[in-house]
Amino acid sequence: MTEKVLNALREVVGEKNLLAGSDDRRAYDNDVIGKHEGHSWAVAQPATTTEVSEILKLAHLHGIPVVPQGGNTGLAGGASPGAGANQIILSLARMNKITEINADTRIARVEAGVVLEKLHNAAAEHDLIFPLFFGARGSCMIGGNLSTNAGGSNVLRYGNTRALVLGVEVVLADGRVLNLMSELLKDNTGYDLKDLFIGAEGTLGVITGAVLKLFPRPSAYATAYLAMGNMADALSLLRSLQDLTGNAVEAFEYMPAGYFKDYVKKYPDCRAPLKNPDKVNILVEVGASSALLARPDSSGRAAVHGVLEETLAKLVEEGKISDAVVAQTDAQRLAFWHCRESAFELSTMYGPMIDHDISVPLGKVDTFLREMRRRLPEIAPEARDCVIAHLGDGNLHYSVVPAENHDGIDPALAENVTSLVEDVIAELNGSFSAEHGIGLSKRPSMARRKDRPALDVMKEIKHALDPKNIMNPGKVLP
Amino acid sequence: MTEKVLNALREVVGEKNLLAGSDDRRAYDNDVIGKHEGHSWAVAQPATTTEVSEILKLAHLHGIPVVPQGGNTGLAGGASPGAGANQIILSLARMNKITEINADTRIARVEAGVVLEKLHNAAAEHDLIFPLFFGARGSCMIGGNLSTNAGGSNVLRYGNTRALVLGVEVVLADGRVLNLMSELLKDNTGYDLKDLFIGAEGTLGVITGAVLKLFPRPSAYATAYLAMGNMADALSLLRSLQDLTGNAVEAFEYMPAGYFKDYVKKYPDCRAPLKNPDKVNILVEVGASSALLARPDSSGRAAVHGVLEETLAKLVEEGKISDAVVAQTDAQRLAFWHCRESAFELSTMYGPMIDHDISVPLGKVDTFLREMRRRLPEIAPEARDCVIAHLGDGNLHYSVVPAENHDGIDPALAENVTSLVEDVIAELNGSFSAEHGIGLSKRPSMARRKDRPALDVMKEIKHALDPKNIMNPGKVLP
Repeated sequence: MTEKVLNALREVVGEKNLLAGSDDRRAYDNDVIGKHEGHSWAVAQPATTTEVSEILKLAHLHGIPVVPQGGNTGLAGGASPGAGANQIILSLARMNKITEINADTRIARVEAGVVLEKLHNAAAEHDLIFPLFFGARGSCMIGGNLSTNAGGSNVLRYGNTRALVLGVEVVLADGRVLNLMSELLKDNTGYDLKDLFIGAEGTLGVITGAVLKLFPRPSAYATAYLAMGNMADALSLLRSLQDLTGNAVEAFEYMPAGYFKDYVKKYPDCRAPLKNPDKVNILVEVGASSALLARPDSSGRAAVHGVLEETLAKLVEEGKISDAVVAQTDAQRLAFWHCRESAFELSTMYGPMIDHDISVPLGKVDTFLREMRRRLPEIAPEARDCVIAHLGDGNLHYSVVPAENHDGIDPALAENVTSLVEDVIAELNGSFSAEHGIGLSKRPSMARRKDRPALDVMKEIKHALDPKNIMNPGKVLP
Repeated sequence: MTEKVLNALREVVGEKNLLAGSDDRRAYDNDVIGKHEGHSWAVAQPATTTEVSEILKLAHLHGIPVVPQGGNTGLAGGASPGAGANQIILSLARMNKITEINADTRIARVEAGVVLEKLHNAAAEHDLIFPLFFGARGSCMIGGNLSTNAGGSNVLRYGNTRALVLGVEVVLADGRVLNLMSELLKDNTGYDLKDLFIGAEGTLGVITGAVLKLFPRPSAYATAYLAMGNMADALSLLRSLQDLTGNAVEAFEYMPAGYFKDYVKKYPDCRAPLKNPDKVNILVEVGASSALLARPDSSGRAAVHGVLEETLAKLVEEGKISDAVVAQTDAQRLAFWHCRESAFELSTMYGPMIDHDISVPLGKVDTFLREMRRRLPEIAPEARDCVIAHLGDGNLHYSVVPAENHDGIDPALAENVTSLVEDVIAELNGSFSAEHGIGLSKRPSMARRKDRPALDVMKEIKHALDPKNIMNPGKVLP
């Protein structure tokens, strides 16, 4: 690693777009959650695919590791330099153009550095949505969304990020540019390379552009909180609503009973949406994107409200819902979502937790929770769980608070708890990584738990596409 | 290749499941359309994944090429031995168990040799559908459907085969078994290997099992033929119907004006569904899988009928539809589909044709047809086109009849025509292979037209996973 290489990089991106000073690099070297620190050698900020290609050619020639980075909002350390030495961070932030929005064919063409919310706003001008929604939308970037196959609360209706992508442009480890920027709905010309790069967290190449699907913006939303006695009834309600509305359920989010008390404790000015929470508490939202659901009923409201209310009323009558409240105004709907989206802030009230982003088959969320409550006390008698779930996807954010008023996590305990979580997950054919990716933090789980031949095949592919191991080394694969 | 290997194979699958005589092999050596002939060395019919693994270990050890085969209904020769020598055909036909249908979580677990229609029937018992439909459904097999990422007329609503698959089991070239039989909706544990094997036509491994998504069976269908003056109006109608019904349009099929005259010529006992065809003739079907669309209206019919009729009536009034007929009974609906599904039989009336299975971006179907009509006469003055399209997917079955009453295809002409089709496709960022796969017949197109770095990456992956090139050699990659 010499000044000569640094100068060559400067020539590619321009003097001011090559950050070599440690102050300049700080925001890139450390991640937002303060979990993954590192020290890069330099941060390169290319403005075009050609510049990305030139950077990778140089890196390939000199064997310099490259860490692609978007908004640096990931939770698993996939965009952090980590412990590796002499790495270049390749920031996509300057490649932030929305090249095209076609309202007729409902597609968007974007560069990888476009901030998610910028695309939301651009789509909204055409009454369309790009249906990927989560907390970091104001700073995360499309390239990172694709590289981690990001999830969120709308996956239930629109699928993971993968399902929203028609085409990608990728720069390979040696600088070759892969043009897969197709907007075709049917294309069987050889292997599906697109999906190989989506979710690969930059270890096989750098995603520099994408063709994305847009969807009509629902003209109305019916949103409610409900308290139910058990998970099976909740899932049966979800199925009914899906069948009734033609899969228009946008979110089906689970919160435990204690959540609402903590919410008003954290936000004394806010009201708990549910006064009498039960074992299973659900935030449900149905979007009226079909005209049938949007049509005004006799009272002038969109039909979607009546559909939701009738369904809930029936279940109240049957004794399956013990409490329910339906948002009557847009403001109330936003307040409902504020409660759900405060999960991260609420979690800071309990001190450090042992976190897990996991998934199980739909019918087995309850089994997982029961099994954990049975076995957790054996290894952590004072611990309690803290669970938020995208229930409709079988995706749980399962955290363990080691004890009340604790002041830190004992690493040995954390390892035991995680090991137990992974045991139960394995017994239920679940996944130890649902939507946040592997990055740095879940590599040990990959080593322990991933199907061995699958891991071998991943390594064989990695070696074939990046023989010098310069693409985000130390991430994803153990 | 010795008697010793043959005996080892016999030991794996049992004497009667190893076909070595040429009469026994005939149905496997030749494809249904009589386009691809070949001579295998033997046909092995394993009954379990373990047997498949044992066969591949032997093949790997001795360097024997293996051609995986399901129902042998493919149109591109992907399951044929072709010109290669000393190949084993690995028939999945005995692995024909539906292991599980879970009506609650709406998934099916199947072995690769399950005939598609068998799965249709099994799902129907639970009022569910597996929404992959095309002519060969009575004999094609799930493993082949996945390996070719098959299409059909329901892709518009439910996606390509790829979109219907949650998990797969794959035996690799050296016999290792990859267990990716997940039913999870969110799983980010490393690279997306599943999608790499789907559509790889058996060149990277053998798919032996799958976890598939099932969907509620629409309780009613509204089906119509319409005659329209131009493609833009047709696409705008499709968009309206999608927005109105929440994407419940199941099929949107294009036929040219001459189609209906030929239909009654071929089937004198049948009536042409459209009396006055126009430039753009569409078979449209909307499925009432949501209760809203299924609800009876004041006349007792499912609401979906009213929705379709009102939409069409408005366009008739605006002069955008010149003729329309809506199916009033189930029998009439089936008659409508008989007309559409006779495309293959009708095509035999014109003698041999130069076929293409292509796709273009949604808005460009018309541009493609106009461009071809302008340029085709330059190289084939007596030729005319014969087009059937899954219009909602931008997928055209574009055939060229070289001349009326011709008695064969001049190979030089065929090459020129295909070259022109590919030129126009390339100009429009379309695909030279939409839903039938590459197999043997489209390898020259892959060589000529596929993005060069993409082709290189495919070869690198193929070499990494199958270094001895025993998996379906000579297919897909040029």
